[in-house]
Amino acid sequence: MTMATGVDPANIERLIAAFAALTEPGEGVTRLGYSPLERRAHALFAEEMERLGLSVSVDAAGNSIAELPAAGGDGRVIGTGSHLDSVPSGGRFDGIAGVCAAIETARAVVASGAERRHTWRFVAFAAEEGARFGQACNGSRAAAGLTRAEDYATLRDARGVTMEDAMIAVGLDPAGVASARWSPEEWLAFVELHIEQGNVLESQDVPIGIVDVISGSSRLLVSLDGIASHTGGTPMRLRHDALVTASECVLACERLATDARHHGTRVTVGRLDVEPGSITTIPGRATFSVDVRDLDNQRQRETAVELVQLFEHIAARRAVDISVRVIGDTSPVVLPVSLVHELAAAAGSCGYDYRVMSSGASHDAQQISRVTRTGMIFVPSRDGLSHVPEEWTSAEQIAAGTEVLLAALTALDAHDGVPHGGATAR
Amino acid sequence: MTMATGVDPANIERLIAAFAALTEPGEGVTRLGYSPLERRAHALFAEEMERLGLSVSVDAAGNSIAELPAAGGDGRVIGTGSHLDSVPSGGRFDGIAGVCAAIETARAVVASGAERRHTWRFVAFAAEEGARFGQACNGSRAAAGLTRAEDYATLRDARGVTMEDAMIAVGLDPAGVASARWSPEEWLAFVELHIEQGNVLESQDVPIGIVDVISGSSRLLVSLDGIASHTGGTPMRLRHDALVTASECVLACERLATDARHHGTRVTVGRLDVEPGSITTIPGRATFSVDVRDLDNQRQRETAVELVQLFEHIAARRAVDISVRVIGDTSPVVLPVSLVHELAAAAGSCGYDYRVMSSGASHDAQQISRVTRTGMIFVPSRDGLSHVPEEWTSAEQIAAGTEVLLAALTALDAHDGVPHGGATAR
Repeated sequence: MTMATGVDPANIERLIAAFAALTEPGEGVTRLGYSPLERRAHALFAEEMERLGLSVSVDAAGNSIAELPAAGGDGRVIGTGSHLDSVPSGGRFDGIAGVCAAIETARAVVASGAERRHTWRFVAFAAEEGARFGQACNGSRAAAGLTRAEDYATLRDARGVTMEDAMIAVGLDPAGVASARWSPEEWLAFVELHIEQGNVLESQDVPIGIVDVISGSSRLLVSLDGIASHTGGTPMRLRHDALVTASECVLACERLATDARHHGTRVTVGRLDVEPGSITTIPGRATFSVDVRDLDNQRQRETAVELVQLFEHIAARRAVDISVRVIGDTSPVVLPVSLVHELAAAAGSCGYDYRVMSSGASHDAQQISRVTRTGMIFVPSRDGLSHVPEEWTSAEQIAAGTEVLLAALTALDAHDGVPHGGATAR
Repeated sequence: MTMATGVDPANIERLIAAFAALTEPGEGVTRLGYSPLERRAHALFAEEMERLGLSVSVDAAGNSIAELPAAGGDGRVIGTGSHLDSVPSGGRFDGIAGVCAAIETARAVVASGAERRHTWRFVAFAAEEGARFGQACNGSRAAAGLTRAEDYATLRDARGVTMEDAMIAVGLDPAGVASARWSPEEWLAFVELHIEQGNVLESQDVPIGIVDVISGSSRLLVSLDGIASHTGGTPMRLRHDALVTASECVLACERLATDARHHGTRVTVGRLDVEPGSITTIPGRATFSVDVRDLDNQRQRETAVELVQLFEHIAARRAVDISVRVIGDTSPVVLPVSLVHELAAAAGSCGYDYRVMSSGASHDAQQISRVTRTGMIFVPSRDGLSHVPEEWTSAEQIAAGTEVLLAALTALDAHDGVPHGGATAR
């Protein structure tokens, strides 16, 4: 059933399924940033947009941008979009929901024949997930001018491949990243639709979330080097067991994140590799990731520093060598109140209840807010689950969000807009 | 330089290097039980023994047995040997030292032309390490009649391959395991030479260890199922993090093994796998191995039971599902005092200082002690390291142990021997 606004849940459902089919074998969706499969998803995005008559380009950082110019417009731009990559064994909605909403918005606006004052751009960002290289929002960071070409050589995935080599292997141009930067003078506003990845909307039975603050994240990679030896031949008191040391560090993360000073801080060890990984050998090496999320800029960084001190203390006591590398760092961002109001009005005009809320996850919107006024629409996640195969949002729920998105873009298009006004979140 | 007894360190050095070359790529030696590489090592053993004029057979469980019959002997048997498989990224001496000592003993005794009253057998046991399938001493367990054909279908490696399938793939006959059983009536005595895998001999500057007790081991595989979700979207208090739960279990192992009741107990978590293993996903699943070693039979089993109770309590408190499987169980064994005396006399006759000591590691001798009177000779391990690439014992140290082995076998050969006398350790 097509809604009054022209948004069609069936088309969204078709698109979600088409993207979900582009996955590595195994549970859920695995379509890592800067992988050949991610490129195939971008090709599908371009195909859909070109079929609607839009021209599509891919920038040096791998972002795909479809453009719908205004007849007689002033060349200034409003836009929407999200990302097409996934975490390993993730779901089919994280990022993709926002790209499908963008495609459906383009379809609805082209079909309506409505006049526009400004150019509309629909963006599929590259490599948003930090799961592969540690650093998140790689495509949108390039758009915001936050990445230098030489940075790409310093990030490596678990197999040691640099982001630079991964990009070159799929035909992108890391050396030319400067050309991917968006011009703040050109942009009026950007709105991203995304699944909530938490259970606030579902538990309150509200269909639309409007984001006012996005968490930052600091990411660490910690290596512990103890001494591997025979489990039978080595008495307990002579051990330098890297896994026992790592286990103390994991519990220290939980303890710090749940103490009285850290209400709202989220600390996770998501990856832990043990070497040599044999039943009868004391672990000589353990490597683990730490993801620190916070809505408070200062507390986020202080928590990361305090964790490193705790880890160093734990390792020293066990005479285990430790090295810590910062593999990602993104500040929390307060989104402009004017856009929160704009999105609230759009939700109201569509007849949807909404709730203003913070985002625990990072988003491309966070980076784009450095270029232009940026807003975010959330749609509910079933059971609050995300980054897992069970991740689920119905096509109707995404369609409701798309209606709000279309209404908001239409309203923003009607304004004159004040370029530069968006940099308030810097 | 060949020693007065005819034992040649240079030949031992050559053999150690030849076996070390049969490894998977990577650090140290990787030649897992029931792998094609282990079979190539057995072929090399046969080649060496056949060159000395011995006949070699391979039994259904993959043990290689070289026989040197006595001219006019009574058909009763004394023997020596150890194993040819390794842990992942292990050393070049664990097991192999004892097989090289057996080959060098055969060479020396053939070269000497000395008369023998009994048949001498030289054995390369299969799949001693529990690193691959959990269960240790698989070849010697078959020789001791401890394995039924149907047991092979229940053990699996980390990739899910059953021991049965692994054996069939390398041309062995798991269904015929009963035929690999040794006859206690036939055997008089067995002596295994092995590296110490601890640092007692080195720290006391003693070249020869004589083992009186061998630790047992109980091995568990623990699976924890929590709930995977987004690291940013999921508040700390709503988490069911499988890795945090596993970390508590790892520390519980250490705490139990070091409390006042457990002097000498050794508990190790050597393997821990985290799924999905992504920086930005809360771990939904963690699987880990537990190796409990003890010289005290009852305490070993009570420790394993107490650990399972602790794990269940930890998992219940965090609402994480837990399942525990016993993947290996070997009792500690007291070796017969008469053989300890025999080995001490042999060391004395060779002019070597020795020390009577226990073994923290499991050994094939443990299983063979159920068939016949069994003894063990230890040679030093540098820095006490084993199951790592740095494992090291010099050819001269192995040669000294081989001299004691040859002297002990010669003395045992001179006795009439009392078959059945060996079953004291049952």
